[in-house]
Amino acid sequence: MEDTNCIFCKIIRGELPALKVYENDTLIAFLDIQPVNKGHTLIIPKKHYRNLYNLPDEILGKIGILMRDLAIAIKKAVGAEGINIEMNNESLAGQLVDHAHIHIIPRFLNDGLRHWPGKELPSDEMKKTREVIVSLIKKNT
Amino acid sequence: MEDTNCIFCKIIRGELPALKVYENDTLIAFLDIQPVNKGHTLIIPKKHYRNLYNLPDEILGKIGILMRDLAIAIKKAVGAEGINIEMNNESLAGQLVDHAHIHIIPRFLNDGLRHWPGKELPSDEMKKTREVIVSLIKKNT
Repeated sequence: MEDTNCIFCKIIRGELPALKVYENDTLIAFLDIQPVNKGHTLIIPKKHYRNLYNLPDEILGKIGILMRDLAIAIKKAVGAEGINIEMNNESLAGQLVDHAHIHIIPRFLNDGLRHWPGKELPSDEMKKTREVIVSLIKKNT
Repeated sequence: MEDTNCIFCKIIRGELPALKVYENDTLIAFLDIQPVNKGHTLIIPKKHYRNLYNLPDEILGKIGILMRDLAIAIKKAVGAEGINIEMNNESLAGQLVDHAHIHIIPRFLNDGLRHWPGKELPSDEMKKTREVIVSLIKKNT
């Protein structure tokens, strides 16, 4: 499952340095080298999966638990007042490394980070979107 | 575990409308009424938990699996080219409703959404941050 050119696989194999904060059989977590804020941490599976779409159930469960435990620890460690979890899937969504990873981003008062604005969409369009999603979930799950 | 004033608990109890796309014993998913992009969906636990910090292991596992399955279905349904997962914890991190929820946001070419910029932090500061996080994870897990 390793990808010889993947920089996260290289970190896992010890071929590239990283400031690791946690490691178990399945996952490692390390500080992002270009942090949005102090304490910005990434969780990655040790096996190479491209993104969320192909992560197995078992790994998703372990990621969820580590995400919570790290969020609590990181918040205390850096004195943050909130935590954003983010996962970018595919380059158009901001995924820069094609090895599934979850961002844990501590937030501070007046850190200048802005959230994406919501908008009103026509009610008919929303209902149609819902119908299509529902039909595709039935096929997928 | 219900919160009488929580708008998400009201949706779960059927006291407020929502365009639901999925429901099981533990979770529901529905379209965000102020979507960032078409197909923007929220996953919430049926029990009232404030945010990530107090979600139990079992629910985290179920959320992870549904997050993946919905991401795949929503991407197809709206013809998106990527998916962002986001979870805002505490008001300073953009949490608007104090009932834990995960955003699934489809992405499109030229949709104008910008990601937060990373920055360089001094190597010494990064190493110190890592040490403090590691010491707090040991206490928490």
